[in-house]
Amino acid sequence: MSGEATAEALVDRVLKREPRAVARAMRAVDDRASGFSALLKALYPHTGGAYVIGVTGTPGAGKSTLVDRMIGAYRARDLSVGVVAVDPTSPFSGGAILGDRIRMQRHFLDADVFIRSLATRGHLGGLSRSAGDVIHVLDAAGFDIVIVETVGVGQDELDVTQLAHTTVVVMAPGMGDDIQAIKAGILEVAEVFAVNKADRDGADSTVRDLQQMIALGRQPRALPARHGHSAAAAATTHGGGGDEWTPPIVKTIASKGEGVDELVEAVGAHREWVVDPERGADKRMRRLSHELLTVFRETLARESERRLSSQIAESLVAIAAREDDPYSATDRLIGSLLVPEEVRP
Amino acid sequence: MSGEATAEALVDRVLKREPRAVARAMRAVDDRASGFSALLKALYPHTGGAYVIGVTGTPGAGKSTLVDRMIGAYRARDLSVGVVAVDPTSPFSGGAILGDRIRMQRHFLDADVFIRSLATRGHLGGLSRSAGDVIHVLDAAGFDIVIVETVGVGQDELDVTQLAHTTVVVMAPGMGDDIQAIKAGILEVAEVFAVNKADRDGADSTVRDLQQMIALGRQPRALPARHGHSAAAAATTHGGGGDEWTPPIVKTIASKGEGVDELVEAVGAHREWVVDPERGADKRMRRLSHELLTVFRETLARESERRLSSQIAESLVAIAAREDDPYSATDRLIGSLLVPEEVRP
Repeated sequence: MSGEATAEALVDRVLKREPRAVARAMRAVDDRASGFSALLKALYPHTGGAYVIGVTGTPGAGKSTLVDRMIGAYRARDLSVGVVAVDPTSPFSGGAILGDRIRMQRHFLDADVFIRSLATRGHLGGLSRSAGDVIHVLDAAGFDIVIVETVGVGQDELDVTQLAHTTVVVMAPGMGDDIQAIKAGILEVAEVFAVNKADRDGADSTVRDLQQMIALGRQPRALPARHGHSAAAAATTHGGGGDEWTPPIVKTIASKGEGVDELVEAVGAHREWVVDPERGADKRMRRLSHELLTVFRETLARESERRLSSQIAESLVAIAAREDDPYSATDRLIGSLLVPEEVRP
Repeated sequence: MSGEATAEALVDRVLKREPRAVARAMRAVDDRASGFSALLKALYPHTGGAYVIGVTGTPGAGKSTLVDRMIGAYRARDLSVGVVAVDPTSPFSGGAILGDRIRMQRHFLDADVFIRSLATRGHLGGLSRSAGDVIHVLDAAGFDIVIVETVGVGQDELDVTQLAHTTVVVMAPGMGDDIQAIKAGILEVAEVFAVNKADRDGADSTVRDLQQMIALGRQPRALPARHGHSAAAAATTHGGGGDEWTPPIVKTIASKGEGVDELVEAVGAHREWVVDPERGADKRMRRLSHELLTVFRETLARESERRLSSQIAESLVAIAAREDDPYSATDRLIGSLLVPEEVRP
C-alpha cells in the first residue's frame, strides 16, 4: 500500500465488500505488508458482526467437503459466508491445497461467499495471529458467518479454534491408533462434534467413544494452560453462569449433504448459548484475551528481534562456540531491551 | 527446589544419570518450577553429546510402536536412549497416552532407557520450548540418543522437529484425504521417511508418491519462514557445502520389527552427512537459532506480561467495550515496556 489516501480508499472498499479489495487487504495482512497494522486499526471498529465458526479435526475426516456443505446451508438461510482455510503450507503443496479448494469453487460466482487459503505458515505469532487478522478483514467486510478451517491437528491449530465463537470438531470412523490421543486434545475445544462419513463401519462406536469422553470430561475445567499463565487471563475468571455446555454429536455424510442442516442447527444452539450475556462472558473475555496476547507477543518479538539483531547474531556465535548458553544469553538480551523496573519503596 | 545446595546436588545427580534425579529435573523444567532457569544454565555446558532424532508423521501411522523398536535397535548397538513423547495432552487424556506409553514399558527395567511424556501443553513458548529444555536434561544426563516423538501434525509439532539433528517422518499407506496436504507440510522437515505398515495395500503407491514429491521438491530451499523473518536467521546463511540431502524412504513393519535396522542405518547415514563440518553448518546454526529464539521469545513474553499485568487487564476491558482495539493497545503496551531506541545522528 502506498500512501494514506490509498489505505483509506482500501478500507472503504473492504467495508463495501468489494471482492478485490477484500482479497488485497487479506494479502496485505498476511504478508505483513507496510501499513498492515494501520489497516487493521482502521478495520477493527467495523468488526464484531460476524459469527466465527472454527472447523478442525483429524486428517481425512472430510472437513473441506463438510465446510463446502455448510456454506450451502448458510447461503440457503440467506447468510453471507467468508472462509479462511488454514493449511500447513509449503512451497510444494500448491497442488494438494488447490485440489481441496477446487471443491469449494462451486460457490465461485456467488458474491456472498468468499474463500481464501491462508498460505503463510510460520509468522512469528503462529497461525493464530494470521488467522485472527484475516478474520477481522472478513468480519469488517460484513460477512455474516466466518468459517476458519484447519488442516493439521496440532497445538497451533487448536489455538486457532480460540478465535472461534463455536468450534466444530470433525471426526471420521476408524481412523486408527493415536487418534485417541488427538481426540482427547480436541475434546476441550469442541463445542459441536460432527462424526462425518457416518455411513462407514464404526460410526456408532465413534459416537459412543465421544459420548464416553464427554461424560468423563464433565468436571470443572481449568482455563487453557497456554493463557492460564498470563496475567490477563486473571481478568477472565469472574463472570460465567456456571452451567456447562455439553457438546452435541451430529452424524453427517458430507458427500451426500446428509446431516448438514442438523450440524448448522447444533452450531446455532451453541450460538444461542454463548451470546447469553451472563453465560458467554467467560468465553468472550478468553477470546479477547487470546487475541490481544497473540498480537502483543508477535509484535513484541518482531520489534525486539529487529532491535537486537546484531546482539542475537553475536550470541549465536558464542553459543555455537560453547562460550555461552541460550538461557544466559536470553537474560542479557532482555536486560538490555526492557526499561528498568521501578523500585517499589 | 529449595536452596542452591539442593540445586547443585540435583545437577550432580542428573550428570550421573540417576533416574529419579533426571525425572525430577525434567519435571522442574516442564513445570517452570522456581529455579528451573538456573538448573538449565548449570546443565547446558554438559550438553552436546546426544544425537537428537525427531519422529513425527500422520496420526495412526504407528509412531509409538516404531519408536519402541528403534529403542531396541539402539540398545542392541549398546547406545543409551532417552525418549520425549510430546502429546497433545488434556486433563482427560491420561488413559490414551498411558496406553501408548505402556507399549514402551518393556524397557522399564533397562537403566539405559528413559521414557517420559511431555505432559505440559501450552507453555508460552509452545511445545518447542518445553521439548527443547527436556532434551537438554536428557543430553546432560549422558544419553547417547534422544528421540523426540510427536503425536500431532501441526505447525507446533513441525517446529519441534527443528530441535532434532535428524527428523524421521512416519507415514502409513492409504490414510485418506487431506494427508496430501500434510505430506507436503512435512516434506520440508523430513530427512528420512519411514513408510510403516508396509504390508498393507497401498504401501508401494505411498512410496511412489513420496518419491515424486521429493523429486519435485529438489529445488533451492528457503529457510523456514518462521525464522526467516528474524534477524538471527541471517547469521545462518553463510556456510554449507551446497549439496543437498535427499531423504531416503524406508519401508517398515514396526509390529514385526521389520525394516527397523534399515531405518536406524538411514538415520546413521544422515548423521554422517550432517556432522560434516562444512555441509552441516547451516543446519546446526539454524538449530541453535531456533533454540535461542524460542527461549528468548518465551522468556520475554512471560516477563513482559508479568510487568504489564494490570495494563493488559485494563486494555481488555477497553477492547471489550469497543473503546480500544488490540493493535493500538499493543503499540501502547510495548511503548511503555521497551527502552527508547537510541536516536542515530
